[in-house]
Amino acid sequence: MQPALEIISSSSNPLVKTLRSLERKKARTETGLFLAEGARLVEQGLAAGWELDSLVVSASSAERPFVQNLVRRAASSGTRTVQVPDRLAGQIARKDNPQAVIGAFKQRQRAISALEAPADSLWIGLYEVRDPGNLGTILRTADCAALSGVLLINQCCDPFSVEGVRASMGSVFDIPFAEGTFEEFQAWRTDASLTVKAASVNGTVRHTEADFKQPSVILMGNEQAGLPPEVEATCDTLCLIPMRGGADSLNLAQATAVMTYEAWRQRDFA
Amino acid sequence: MQPALEIISSSSNPLVKTLRSLERKKARTETGLFLAEGARLVEQGLAAGWELDSLVVSASSAERPFVQNLVRRAASSGTRTVQVPDRLAGQIARKDNPQAVIGAFKQRQRAISALEAPADSLWIGLYEVRDPGNLGTILRTADCAALSGVLLINQCCDPFSVEGVRASMGSVFDIPFAEGTFEEFQAWRTDASLTVKAASVNGTVRHTEADFKQPSVILMGNEQAGLPPEVEATCDTLCLIPMRGGADSLNLAQATAVMTYEAWRQRDFA
Repeated sequence: MQPALEIISSSSNPLVKTLRSLERKKARTETGLFLAEGARLVEQGLAAGWELDSLVVSASSAERPFVQNLVRRAASSGTRTVQVPDRLAGQIARKDNPQAVIGAFKQRQRAISALEAPADSLWIGLYEVRDPGNLGTILRTADCAALSGVLLINQCCDPFSVEGVRASMGSVFDIPFAEGTFEEFQAWRTDASLTVKAASVNGTVRHTEADFKQPSVILMGNEQAGLPPEVEATCDTLCLIPMRGGADSLNLAQATAVMTYEAWRQRDFA
Repeated sequence: MQPALEIISSSSNPLVKTLRSLERKKARTETGLFLAEGARLVEQGLAAGWELDSLVVSASSAERPFVQNLVRRAASSGTRTVQVPDRLAGQIARKDNPQAVIGAFKQRQRAISALEAPADSLWIGLYEVRDPGNLGTILRTADCAALSGVLLINQCCDPFSVEGVRASMGSVFDIPFAEGTFEEFQAWRTDASLTVKAASVNGTVRHTEADFKQPSVILMGNEQAGLPPEVEATCDTLCLIPMRGGADSLNLAQATAVMTYEAWRQRDFA
């Protein structure tokens, strides 16, 4: 049986306008929605139990079996399913060659204070990180390394931005993350007996010498400014990733991967 | 003394057209030039001895002391120095807010076969890597980790693309890199007695168990396809970076950083 698809062809249709607006943080906050592009990503969101608000299919892909399957599955759980001309799909994704399907999922907001920290847990904390590509890449790394989650401290960029979701390659659906102020983070991590190992140019301990077998937060600072002195003063260990003299620093996401996989090496928690 | 600056204000000026064309690989190949944006990057290129063909200054920045210094320095070594309206600078950089200066440097082409491999040297080999952001980020990582160089095997993306140069944060000027076919690479690495440690989903040895104290090439495959079986068959060690079950793979640049810093840890060559 063909799935029932609502046909929309005008760019002034309210749903199309809403989906196009999700490029902007303000619209994402107001609607509580975010975009995931491509069947693989949408499948991943559904598999992880995220609520799909609406599913858009480009006209040229509507007949493809995997698209029809996805539409049937979405419609059966009450998701609005819509077919649009390829031109409109491109406008929503802001791309010349959009994916066959685009999903609008409901965001999940979580507070750091609401997280449970199991014994021996390992986390990544990001302090005022600003680049959505870095954030998405770090979610992907944290997911690959089976961390407990990622903590977004103070004003970080939005994990639900289109660029962040893209860079996360779907890990945005799988790795828990939560937001809070630095004070909330401090209260939580103290309560959970987590040590903080920060990567810093002021580091005094090689990152390979820090003890990541302890329950820990790997704390990474802002791309330009790093961590402020008052935050560094609260950390248990300031780690230095070695670098040749004269070289500029590693990219933030690279440095995070190096810290994370050093922790994995020490813990060997495969 | 004010530096002498040629004033250009038309977008149909031949120099402006040439600089704008450098966005395209074909034009970069024909002219042998590439763009570096920003005073910091241009300074870094000059410091590393790269030949600056022309230097463009945006009108609103021309009076700034650091710009005047750079112009004086460039002009004294025969570089063509040009002032353009901000609008034109934006067209060259394809950005709304272009940097104060944009330099066009002469490319350097190097063949893998022409590289010298010192005893104990460590390299990154990239096999048909396609994303210029990944390539630039990997050049930056290789530079930070003081590797001997980066080998671009078969058809990789262009290290001189605007996106690649940006992501390298200037490392494109500092870390040696060279191109060649896989056959040339194989002949060279055999001659230089280098072992090849490849990261692979088919890996049989944990990356932390591979012996990076040996003179080695860390070999990384294409973003989608990885390494072809016939290439994997030539490698000394296929390394597996551990990952939680069900997770997608690490981003290529992340995986390269993890391999590279594991090698550093084993060698401790600070």
